[in-house]
Amino acid sequence: MSSPSPTPRTRPGGRTARIRTQVLDAVSAELAENGYDAVTVDAVAARAGVHRATVYRRWRDTGGLIADLFTAAGDIDWQPRDTGSLVGDLTALNQEIQDSLGEPNSIAVALIAVSFRSAEAADALRRLWADRYHQSEVVVRRAVARGELAPAVDARALLITATAPVYHQVVLLRLEPDPELPRRAAESAVAGVLSTSCCAPAAPSDVTSPP
Amino acid sequence: MSSPSPTPRTRPGGRTARIRTQVLDAVSAELAENGYDAVTVDAVAARAGVHRATVYRRWRDTGGLIADLFTAAGDIDWQPRDTGSLVGDLTALNQEIQDSLGEPNSIAVALIAVSFRSAEAADALRRLWADRYHQSEVVVRRAVARGELAPAVDARALLITATAPVYHQVVLLRLEPDPELPRRAAESAVAGVLSTSCCAPAAPSDVTSPP
Repeated sequence: MSSPSPTPRTRPGGRTARIRTQVLDAVSAELAENGYDAVTVDAVAARAGVHRATVYRRWRDTGGLIADLFTAAGDIDWQPRDTGSLVGDLTALNQEIQDSLGEPNSIAVALIAVSFRSAEAADALRRLWADRYHQSEVVVRRAVARGELAPAVDARALLITATAPVYHQVVLLRLEPDPELPRRAAESAVAGVLSTSCCAPAAPSDVTSPP
Repeated sequence: MSSPSPTPRTRPGGRTARIRTQVLDAVSAELAENGYDAVTVDAVAARAGVHRATVYRRWRDTGGLIADLFTAAGDIDWQPRDTGSLVGDLTALNQEIQDSLGEPNSIAVALIAVSFRSAEAADALRRLWADRYHQSEVVVRRAVARGELAPAVDARALLITATAPVYHQVVLLRLEPDPELPRRAAESAVAGVLSTSCCAPAAPSDVTSPP
């Protein structure tokens, strides 16, 4: 969802791990600067300063390199911010997404673009989205714990409603990031979920004095 | 936004118009079945039964063919449905979008995919989105006229909020279409806009008896 650097910086050592870091850094740089067609075993090996045979043996081809980039992106120990309110947390999440999508040579946009080129990348992106939304569900659980939402809320659906307009604006509509959008989309999603029968919190007395 | 067949069927006659129809039908078929890389002047000319030189002279290359497909898609006289309520209209719009995105070899998804491959296609898609959202604004104007929303509402922002989750689910998250999503996203967007200070309608007496 957000796009932290896809290559873990503090992976436990060893030559194998070091080579993976070098190779994946080279993949993400090629992808962001020159696009999918530039991600060849030769170009990546040269950029990474790793022998071509090593790259070929471990990653085989462009598809293998891209898939491992997604896997590494999913390994990162990412946490959504805790601002103390549901609208605040969703706004912070949207701001992080918008920042990562709007940066020059955005890796997040590049990963989305390659998912239209390769079935392997599409599967990897599907898993990455699932991980990121799963990691973000804590935002909704905290809101339930604070009594902002009823426990019956569908956390995934709320997160998708809140974040979709930011992706839509930048990735699909290809408009400039709108500085008001992260908060507006967060507020709208919260108002939407509170208007449904499932999800408004119980009366305050029930929340503060459970039986 | 929706994806009607991109080639106008009832274009005023003449050989030039007929050739354009044949060629664009061939482009959309190649695109949907075999992807961007299959859209070559040779393949399209053969499929359309048109001389290669004719295609080359008028469309020049893959980029020109794809760009004209977008232009033709934008020419279609499309209208959103009028169901009598804002939630109903937005649900119908979302259903139409979801149907077009979910069909096998979806042209809508293919147009989005090619926009990541060519700057010309990206520009064309930006114009197509702008047209479709402009055509959809009538849904919001009708809601204002019925007194469902205040005139100050930002029609474009509401339409983006309502439709974004459908695109996000199918195009970016690559999940199966969710039959409940068109209505849920419409209801959430309406609840969201009604919760803002700008947009709830004036009191009923003001609506039914204007000064």
